[in-house]
Amino acid sequence: MLYTDSLSRLIKEFQKMPGIGQKSAQRMALYVLQISKPQAQRLAKAIVDIKDKILYCSICGNITEQNPCSICANPKRDPAVICVVEDPKGLLAIEKTKAHHGHYHVLMGNISPLDNIGPEQIRIKELMQRIEAGGISELIIATSPNIEGETTAMYISKLVKPTGIKVTRIARGLPMGGDLEYADEVTITKAMEGRLEF
Amino acid sequence: MLYTDSLSRLIKEFQKMPGIGQKSAQRMALYVLQISKPQAQRLAKAIVDIKDKILYCSICGNITEQNPCSICANPKRDPAVICVVEDPKGLLAIEKTKAHHGHYHVLMGNISPLDNIGPEQIRIKELMQRIEAGGISELIIATSPNIEGETTAMYISKLVKPTGIKVTRIARGLPMGGDLEYADEVTITKAMEGRLEF
Repeated sequence: MLYTDSLSRLIKEFQKMPGIGQKSAQRMALYVLQISKPQAQRLAKAIVDIKDKILYCSICGNITEQNPCSICANPKRDPAVICVVEDPKGLLAIEKTKAHHGHYHVLMGNISPLDNIGPEQIRIKELMQRIEAGGISELIIATSPNIEGETTAMYISKLVKPTGIKVTRIARGLPMGGDLEYADEVTITKAMEGRLEF
Repeated sequence: MLYTDSLSRLIKEFQKMPGIGQKSAQRMALYVLQISKPQAQRLAKAIVDIKDKILYCSICGNITEQNPCSICANPKRDPAVICVVEDPKGLLAIEKTKAHHGHYHVLMGNISPLDNIGPEQIRIKELMQRIEAGGISELIIATSPNIEGETTAMYISKLVKPTGIKVTRIARGLPMGGDLEYADEVTITKAMEGRLEF
């Protein structure tokens, strides 16, 4: 009875979003209440539009509005080096660094037995098809450094190694600007294992 | 060029919300991308609906779907004690505690000279009209304990005092569960000033 019907409905919708709790959802709903009606309509339209306009690149699986996506279609990028990421968020994170000049392959998930996600549920088959088609020299596996990401990386590397293609994994180690004192043991262990010669 | 057009449009819309930064907005937009189309339409509808259905209570100024609101219309609540809050968020925060059994008055803002908000821009005139209409014994001022909230509280108390109505201010002091060591000086000063006898 605290909220009106339409307000509690909107709060519930916002709360379904990742990282949005009760307080944030309430703040967001009250924001919507306070903006003008055309502004609210613009927000609602942006939400529906994205579902109508966005499709998945038939090559890398990234979200795009034209197929193939702007990265796969860019002649300046090296199609021989493919960076494997778990989702578009991972791709965006790497693109922002401008450290990768090759193509991508978006898995749309990680292997996670606990969530009933096996290798067949993510885009590993499509990756193998790209490899079989030839022209690839290196596969950089950039899944997250958590259990699911590591499992997926391991699985793909075992699958691809026999083809003779170079398979690498992005380095796990101490974050830049961090303090050794505050780093956790697993990270320090990984940093020791991954040490490079000067 | 990192995002597609419709994605960056949605991210921009989300970023306008209070407390939503670039990262959260991106996460929210990618969530919308991933839910089903009917789900996205439901979210969009909830946003537009709220603008169509919600109105402001003609008595207290709170958001409601019927006029007067369920608090003003509730015969079990005491209309002689009015709690003055700056916005519906403040009202909700107090309602959740179940500590107030009277009515409310929502100011829809605080006096803030820096933002060009004077006493005329918020619902003080309406408050004075309610007081003049009679039947009110106590005014509990529950604006936020920041500069704007304190200014507003002070202004209203000065305005109402001559009418003979009891005007109180919710206590400022140490938050429960907190540690004296980590409290700021202004809060400790307020806590000392507001000390109560055992």
